[in-house]
Amino acid sequence: MTDGRLKHFGWGREGEGLTPDEAAAALDRYRRLFGVERFDEAALPILSEINLRPPRIAPPPVLAPHCSSEPYDRVAHTYGKSFCDYARGLAGEYENAPDVVAYPRNEAEVTSIIDWAGGAQAAVIPFGAGSSVVGGIEPRLEGSPHRAAVSLDLRHLNQLVEIDRTSRAARIEAGVFGPALEAQLRPHDLTLRHFPQSFEYSTLGGWIATRSGGHFASLYTHIDDFVESLRIVTPRGPIETRRLPGSGAGPSPDRLFIGSEGILGVITEAWMRLQDRPRFRAGGAIKFADFFSAARAVRAIAQAGLYPSNCRILDPQEAQNTGAGDGASAILVLAFESGDHQVDAWVSRALECCADHGGTRENPRKADAHREGAAESWRNAFIRMPYAREQLVNRAIVADTFETAITWERFEGFHDRVKSATETAIREATGRPGQVTCRFTHIYPDGPAPYFSFHALGRHGALTEQWATIKGAASEALMAAGGTITHHHAVGRDHREWYDKQRPELFAAALRAAKQAVDPHGVLNPGVLIDP
Amino acid sequence: MTDGRLKHFGWGREGEGLTPDEAAAALDRYRRLFGVERFDEAALPILSEINLRPPRIAPPPVLAPHCSSEPYDRVAHTYGKSFCDYARGLAGEYENAPDVVAYPRNEAEVTSIIDWAGGAQAAVIPFGAGSSVVGGIEPRLEGSPHRAAVSLDLRHLNQLVEIDRTSRAARIEAGVFGPALEAQLRPHDLTLRHFPQSFEYSTLGGWIATRSGGHFASLYTHIDDFVESLRIVTPRGPIETRRLPGSGAGPSPDRLFIGSEGILGVITEAWMRLQDRPRFRAGGAIKFADFFSAARAVRAIAQAGLYPSNCRILDPQEAQNTGAGDGASAILVLAFESGDHQVDAWVSRALECCADHGGTRENPRKADAHREGAAESWRNAFIRMPYAREQLVNRAIVADTFETAITWERFEGFHDRVKSATETAIREATGRPGQVTCRFTHIYPDGPAPYFSFHALGRHGALTEQWATIKGAASEALMAAGGTITHHHAVGRDHREWYDKQRPELFAAALRAAKQAVDPHGVLNPGVLIDP
Repeated sequence: MTDGRLKHFGWGREGEGLTPDEAAAALDRYRRLFGVERFDEAALPILSEINLRPPRIAPPPVLAPHCSSEPYDRVAHTYGKSFCDYARGLAGEYENAPDVVAYPRNEAEVTSIIDWAGGAQAAVIPFGAGSSVVGGIEPRLEGSPHRAAVSLDLRHLNQLVEIDRTSRAARIEAGVFGPALEAQLRPHDLTLRHFPQSFEYSTLGGWIATRSGGHFASLYTHIDDFVESLRIVTPRGPIETRRLPGSGAGPSPDRLFIGSEGILGVITEAWMRLQDRPRFRAGGAIKFADFFSAARAVRAIAQAGLYPSNCRILDPQEAQNTGAGDGASAILVLAFESGDHQVDAWVSRALECCADHGGTRENPRKADAHREGAAESWRNAFIRMPYAREQLVNRAIVADTFETAITWERFEGFHDRVKSATETAIREATGRPGQVTCRFTHIYPDGPAPYFSFHALGRHGALTEQWATIKGAASEALMAAGGTITHHHAVGRDHREWYDKQRPELFAAALRAAKQAVDPHGVLNPGVLIDP
Repeated sequence: MTDGRLKHFGWGREGEGLTPDEAAAALDRYRRLFGVERFDEAALPILSEINLRPPRIAPPPVLAPHCSSEPYDRVAHTYGKSFCDYARGLAGEYENAPDVVAYPRNEAEVTSIIDWAGGAQAAVIPFGAGSSVVGGIEPRLEGSPHRAAVSLDLRHLNQLVEIDRTSRAARIEAGVFGPALEAQLRPHDLTLRHFPQSFEYSTLGGWIATRSGGHFASLYTHIDDFVESLRIVTPRGPIETRRLPGSGAGPSPDRLFIGSEGILGVITEAWMRLQDRPRFRAGGAIKFADFFSAARAVRAIAQAGLYPSNCRILDPQEAQNTGAGDGASAILVLAFESGDHQVDAWVSRALECCADHGGTRENPRKADAHREGAAESWRNAFIRMPYAREQLVNRAIVADTFETAITWERFEGFHDRVKSATETAIREATGRPGQVTCRFTHIYPDGPAPYFSFHALGRHGALTEQWATIKGAASEALMAAGGTITHHHAVGRDHREWYDKQRPELFAAALRAAKQAVDPHGVLNPGVLIDP
């Protein structure tokens, strides 16, 4: 990690990115995939050349010291990190830049900014670290009565406030980034162990607002279960839920705000359930003849009540793309961990489930096999993946992912239907074949969360349309086949079309009514989840 | 189980109850506790002598065949099964009896009854098996605009509709009683394994509507996590959520209805996540010098990630009362179970946690120790307990329970404060000491769910006031000390005073707005959770 500021375009901070070797390897792979020698390379957007409309509002003097309308701040708060975001940035489309970026230092300032913005008919867009891939933080004001937008950046609310070692819980400010959170927990020998792919550039509040999926492949898949209580600022005032290990007192207040994606309030603090740091780990990589055999083994593991911390299948192509396999076999990356006890009994039984379905273990004699070989290759590829996208979009390589969940009995047909629809759409959109791969990110006793990656060679000037064709076809297919439009990337603005079909209409009515009760003027994140 | 109809007063069906030996043993214990020779015995209410107002409405001819205004039906649907319910029944107070009891045979009839009742300005009270202990199904109309009440009894919606063996899930009608549900799952070698104390006389829909706490002492404590999707009839139409193993698409629709206690809609069906029937079990009873030592061992187990299916501590007095101990030691009833694998490694580590805190195992050499000795004594007492209450109230013995949850770091002070406040209130209310005991029903990494029982000798004519004094003091104490007013008994009408303090006011505003959206005329269960 460098100390540079966050890039105005791309992943992470200025100065970070793929090494030349990593970039060369990625591009080589795409050259082979698409059968091309060179890519049509466009220039990345230079900050000083980006055209922004003059800010439509200005903060009052008392807030001005904590606000900015400088081009860097406005550009860096316009988009998230989806392929489509990058494509539009590359095309110089910054008409949705916020007018003001506010950096409150405490909850009182959060309240003041919301109050001021509401009075000024400006929308407020809660902003963590800006790594949404669903248009969750882009100030699109069409259809809303707002005349300006304020991006509310919570980065200064970044402290571990209080720790309860006995109950293994901590009160934490919501704007803290993943690494800074873990650094503050380490002296207490505790960890949240919530490591989404965006870990370095996402925040606790962002995780909670979007029902982020994290490190644990089973059991504690989403952040939801780690939330002990919340503090939220709404336009009508603060809400604080009671710190409880469990409760049955009416519908859970926390569960209304978990996943509310900034439309009901700004999460300022949470009491989070923590873990002991793992002392015992074991696992490894298991090869299967095909993806579905691996899936059947994983179903057995999920239904056995073993709760692996890692249990991710890569299909043969995904394994090859990440250096974890040779393209002939599916790979299961399996790990158990505990801060309390040896996990041998757990691993042994899981390996039996694998053997039942033809799985064979890589390096069975190495005790730390889970940190080497295929497992480690995949882990490195996973962590570096977000840095690759800015090197692809400017070469017109359309590379994106989408994720879902489905019950086991429908999984195989679902997988084939979604993959096929996406492949067809790639050919339609780009005139040539691309690639669609699949892995499991999380597993449940009643079904997996499949995660698809797709790769297509697009054309500058048509990238957003080409992407939209592919994304639309994939989304239609997964919805028609019974999946969810998102397992852990959230809804934002980009998934609205399909979310609106998935969500029962009367639940939408209840959600709109709940929003009206806490945000009567619709100030917060208009267009996300429900219409403004 | 007999085939008799449900009692109009008391637990279970006509013909069921404590055996004479069980009753004698219970009364002997109370004689010793209160130092009395005989109890002032009142007559149980005889159905034909109960005074009911004439029904204020009558169903239309098309619904009449599935409705009743017979005294038996109205009386049997007036109250739940709390001490206070029995005390008022004993005093002949039946002014809140519903005017009509409807027994729909399908969802269309549920809709018709809600439509008719709404048009007739009658409240609709969803009714499962009537074992609420919080006034959840009593038609109290004060403060509501309704002129009559219809109890909507869902007993005929009792079928297993569809089973998905691969995903281990089933679509089940919500009015099914516990034993009938398990009987329908058994041929498929599956089980819900949700066994609240009320199991015999409660329903799937009731469990979901009240966030019932079940068999599993850890991990899957509430029914919540077993719900895969729901079908709900609201006054504005049906809601059906998508069947998914996991999702991150906005706030969970299911979680708004789980715990909604009949105020938002009538749950008619649910897809439920099931378990394999256990093939491997182990555990036993572990003695500790005192309750807090046992609690420290249980905290270690909860934080170790071992997930015992049973992990219930009885304080010394509770152990003695249930025949599980001699009154000198606290007893931990510990069990692990699995449908997949031997649980030796799990048990061994849990026993080490116990030994670390001075726990010694009863009958360590018996493999099935978890089904014998203290564990079995307690289990029998637990199952028979609901039958005892009707034998106590008519002797003016005030015996009731309340339950809560609290984080570990506050637990010891919390326990002492709540117990002491309750003991003081017993002396104030009855003029003599009583008894307050405690056990844990469920445990979490961040805290336990303590369950208190209290025993006092009251006086006929003053029972409800005496009970209210004790219950009020206990509730005040547990709220002031940071607990929840209920961990799994629900809010109903009786917990409203404290729930209203616990629940953030702006969440209440959101909940009221959500209700307005799906039940604009406030037909459903007025007075529960929020004001009518």
